[in-house]
Amino acid sequence: MIKITFPDGHTQAFPEGITGLEIARSIHPGLAKKALAITVNGEVWDLTRPIHEDAVIRIHTWDDEEGKHAFWHSSAHLMAEALEALYPGIKFGIGPAIDNGFYYDVDPGDGVVITEADLPRIEQKMKELARQKNQYRRKVVSKKEALEFFQSKGDEYKVELINDLTDQEITFYNQGNFTDLCRGPHLPGTEPIKAIKLLNVAGAYWRGDENRKQLTRIYGITFPKQSMLEEYLVWLEEAKKRDHRRIGRELELFTFSQRVGQGLPLWLPKGAQLRERLENYLKKIQKDFGYEPVITPHIGQKALYVTSGHYEKYGQDSFQPIKTPVKGEEFLLKPMNCPHHCEIYRSKPHTYKELPVRYAEFGTVYRYEQSGELHGLTRVRGFTQDDAHIFCRPDQLKDEFMKVIDIVFLIFNKLHFEHFTAQISLRDPEDREKYIGSDENWDKAEKAIIEACEEKGLKTTTVLGEAAFYGPKLDFMVKDALSREWQLGTIQVDYNLPERFDLEYIGADDKRHRPVMIHRAPFGSMERFVAVLIEHTAGKFPLWLAPDQVIILPISEKYNDYAKKVLNFLNNSDIRTLIDERNEKIGKKIRDSELKKIPYLLIVGEKEETSESVSVRRQGKGNVGSMKTEEFVRFLKEKIEKENE
Amino acid sequence: MIKITFPDGHTQAFPEGITGLEIARSIHPGLAKKALAITVNGEVWDLTRPIHEDAVIRIHTWDDEEGKHAFWHSSAHLMAEALEALYPGIKFGIGPAIDNGFYYDVDPGDGVVITEADLPRIEQKMKELARQKNQYRRKVVSKKEALEFFQSKGDEYKVELINDLTDQEITFYNQGNFTDLCRGPHLPGTEPIKAIKLLNVAGAYWRGDENRKQLTRIYGITFPKQSMLEEYLVWLEEAKKRDHRRIGRELELFTFSQRVGQGLPLWLPKGAQLRERLENYLKKIQKDFGYEPVITPHIGQKALYVTSGHYEKYGQDSFQPIKTPVKGEEFLLKPMNCPHHCEIYRSKPHTYKELPVRYAEFGTVYRYEQSGELHGLTRVRGFTQDDAHIFCRPDQLKDEFMKVIDIVFLIFNKLHFEHFTAQISLRDPEDREKYIGSDENWDKAEKAIIEACEEKGLKTTTVLGEAAFYGPKLDFMVKDALSREWQLGTIQVDYNLPERFDLEYIGADDKRHRPVMIHRAPFGSMERFVAVLIEHTAGKFPLWLAPDQVIILPISEKYNDYAKKVLNFLNNSDIRTLIDERNEKIGKKIRDSELKKIPYLLIVGEKEETSESVSVRRQGKGNVGSMKTEEFVRFLKEKIEKENE
Repeated sequence: MIKITFPDGHTQAFPEGITGLEIARSIHPGLAKKALAITVNGEVWDLTRPIHEDAVIRIHTWDDEEGKHAFWHSSAHLMAEALEALYPGIKFGIGPAIDNGFYYDVDPGDGVVITEADLPRIEQKMKELARQKNQYRRKVVSKKEALEFFQSKGDEYKVELINDLTDQEITFYNQGNFTDLCRGPHLPGTEPIKAIKLLNVAGAYWRGDENRKQLTRIYGITFPKQSMLEEYLVWLEEAKKRDHRRIGRELELFTFSQRVGQGLPLWLPKGAQLRERLENYLKKIQKDFGYEPVITPHIGQKALYVTSGHYEKYGQDSFQPIKTPVKGEEFLLKPMNCPHHCEIYRSKPHTYKELPVRYAEFGTVYRYEQSGELHGLTRVRGFTQDDAHIFCRPDQLKDEFMKVIDIVFLIFNKLHFEHFTAQISLRDPEDREKYIGSDENWDKAEKAIIEACEEKGLKTTTVLGEAAFYGPKLDFMVKDALSREWQLGTIQVDYNLPERFDLEYIGADDKRHRPVMIHRAPFGSMERFVAVLIEHTAGKFPLWLAPDQVIILPISEKYNDYAKKVLNFLNNSDIRTLIDERNEKIGKKIRDSELKKIPYLLIVGEKEETSESVSVRRQGKGNVGSMKTEEFVRFLKEKIEKENE
Repeated sequence: MIKITFPDGHTQAFPEGITGLEIARSIHPGLAKKALAITVNGEVWDLTRPIHEDAVIRIHTWDDEEGKHAFWHSSAHLMAEALEALYPGIKFGIGPAIDNGFYYDVDPGDGVVITEADLPRIEQKMKELARQKNQYRRKVVSKKEALEFFQSKGDEYKVELINDLTDQEITFYNQGNFTDLCRGPHLPGTEPIKAIKLLNVAGAYWRGDENRKQLTRIYGITFPKQSMLEEYLVWLEEAKKRDHRRIGRELELFTFSQRVGQGLPLWLPKGAQLRERLENYLKKIQKDFGYEPVITPHIGQKALYVTSGHYEKYGQDSFQPIKTPVKGEEFLLKPMNCPHHCEIYRSKPHTYKELPVRYAEFGTVYRYEQSGELHGLTRVRGFTQDDAHIFCRPDQLKDEFMKVIDIVFLIFNKLHFEHFTAQISLRDPEDREKYIGSDENWDKAEKAIIEACEEKGLKTTTVLGEAAFYGPKLDFMVKDALSREWQLGTIQVDYNLPERFDLEYIGADDKRHRPVMIHRAPFGSMERFVAVLIEHTAGKFPLWLAPDQVIILPISEKYNDYAKKVLNFLNNSDIRTLIDERNEKIGKKIRDSELKKIPYLLIVGEKEETSESVSVRRQGKGNVGSMKTEEFVRFLKEKIEKENE
């Protein structure tokens, strides 16, 4: 007998060799039906794998990430089986589960092309195979066996993967006519895969290397119920509508130019102004919180990054050094603002009384990303961090952390990110060697972060071993309107740079001490934040932030003059106002304005002109009523003021 | 006989071979005494050089740049003579006249060092030689003769210069025991050089090449009267006090770091805030004038600058291309914002109705300068232009020019630059071939600039042939408080980039047209402008701009609490306020605050605490009187408001 411990802590004896599925069935047949995988002593296993020793377990269903992951991973194998049936000789790269569904990278062979037009046929085949209710069977094989299998099959990708493996145990999984090299885990069988949708086809370099062959990546998603798939497809449609690249183009917020270069956004007037409003908002908060602005160049000598350690760590994979015409000086595009801020700290002596010193800069940094990795404003090669570095005494850490959390709360609240979580990343207590800084400082810093989060009532998860080698950190994840998680702000303690830059302050004891450094960026970067904000709001920004707040729609050209009078009055009242003077039907003008997501539409015709008023519509909501023009200004200003409370 | 035409247009016949000195003497013996050089048919000559043909002449005295130039150039030769007497075997590089005085680059020989301690002795020798009243004698020599002379003397620098000469005529100048290779012109003799001051010694690479030998550069200045030298030295002392590098350090506005790199300013909090106030001031004006902000990256693909033509023109002498780890992409640090703005213009179609489009960006650009050329904030490697590009129809040029002139006027007025001039740079009418753009467009643009300046009542000088090949321009020069001229803002018409980027708009005729582009930067760059502003105001900025507006000085520590109450009240009223809580005598506190150039000092003691008031002092002016604290806030706000009128 072995002892099984359940998540609630209770234990029960089971015969040795019992499987997760059998345990689930012993609890309730319904659970066995819903079960998809099991965690056994911290590792996710197949439900059908026998357990031979005492174990702490957790059974996973569709409600867990682990359950979904096994479901989609098994679906990837199912798709592979279908592909092999339809495209004999097809070769396989890798086929993992992802956040929403799965993909498989395949090489259909010379001259064979798989396009989106082929997806329905592959889907059909998958459904047919799923109905066969085949089992996923795990088998431990030797490296030699594994190589022989794929060599004889002629799949050089799998052969390469096996050759590179350092795993102690190599496993195959088989279902129906398909066998794959795979660590698992998988579902017991294909039966639960009821609803299947293949989504799209893309190119992907083998192992992400632009110099190697481009494979065909097929994305798909599956569900245990047809209704869930339908719901998902509606959600996906909504996500597409909210795609910040699309909305950014439609609202003329930003653009890209092939000539300027990929991943280097050009902020158009409406976007630049929106970004400036966000920056000004944060600047004001930062001023209240005692931050001081600084401005530093976008390059620095190589020596600066050798000092900071960035060159050693990232030099090879970054934008390469900038040489000068004479004398062989070398500069680097700055990947981070911290070395520059350290040099500012060093530019004069400091005493314990002046600390904390908080240098803030909306600093644009440049980091090389492969072109295939670039995506709109969320993955770029140049971006502006709402960066600041706090230099403080160790005893000030907790207080400073609490203040940064306050700033993050203010921002999330102001921008209606109601759902967010935070992750505390601490040292691996088993491997203290790999961290820089004294044990005492680490303990102090970790305690400061944990207590700061507690006192601020912040919901956190704590992960051991996720801290950077130079200090623990706190990351914020927001959930947007479509429940997607985005990592935004971050607060990071740093013992390393003060050491490397030999930063000091004179303590109350008249001796030299090292300050602690905190890196923090509540938005993360302006690019990423604006992207997330667009996807969260679908471009319907809060009034104070909206690129245009009001559009005036004259019923006919006869009222253009009156409309212009209203326009001037509103613009002079600092309300961002447009006018639609086109010779179009009012219905069309309203529809077009609604698409532009302008919060307020003012319709003016004879009645309005006579009574010096405007007829007000709220975007997406309809008629608000008629108001005198000054009354409308007051009404709008009150709305904006409310947002700013 | 030859015909001599005077500046006022009248002519007179003189015997052939007459000299400038003789002509001057014929007009008035006093003029002959004051005369220093003569312009003959557009070339500046020695007064003693015979004139053999009809000539338009102008006689130069100390009041002309040309006169001073000859004076100082002759003084450089006099210094060389003194050096040769004191340091036998010394070798000479070049020794020109400069804006204020002259220098000579010399190689005193191995092991011999000339330091500032040696200057009085050299000065003494110069005075001694000047009193000999030697004549400067011009002599035409063959290249062979010239080479032989300096080879036998062992001066390899002069030999190198002669070898590189392409002049048709090589001339030597001799006075006393000294002979130099020189194009002249020079004074008739050393006699007028009455007052001599050698200023300092610096290192200078031979021919500005950091890989060649470092020579010793000795700076000096001379005058025809001792009182003029004394006046100059007072002025120089004042200029040193106003040196923006010194004030920038003292007021903690900016700093440099060897590790970040030379010529790359780090703006400290007080400087960054001051700069932001200037930027916000201009942003507000620009908004009122219909500019739209954009934000673009600090790099661009090489292809962008190949398109713009910048790569061909500047590529070799600039920061070299930035390579990427894979795929061999190449980027350049942007030396100008215009190519990026052209790409923004291209990102959507335009019609004649929308023009002008005005894109504004405080865009930081990077241009390589040799390290020897760098100087504080006025000559840097990275700077932020208050840049904007106006894309307009040809018929809008004049109006746009007038609007930009209005902005420049607003700024100069706001910042108390009362004395400024402007230069219009037009085409060389003799050489129309070298300009791009149609004759019609050039005529239109030149006329637009001239008329715009006239209508705005702007005092201008017009220089033919100084236009860029791509369009005429208007440059603004301000005179600072020490009457030094600084080039600041510029307005430049451009027909070239719209062509190269194939920019278009749809005209009223429904056809495609090329817009005209205007580059403009009223400040020039934030770095240069702040430097000039510091030197102009000696760091005593207008109240609205001052880094700190008020400092509170408690008479003793007993009143620190009350002082803090006042501090909070002022800071909450948005008045930038400091406090000096040190345990120092009030006299010392006042003196220290005066040095910091803080406009208002508030002294608080028992009387002030009891009556909730402050005792007000104006920096540099003294006691203003006692006021209730709220009253002082009103008083100060009124002052600031007045500045903003």
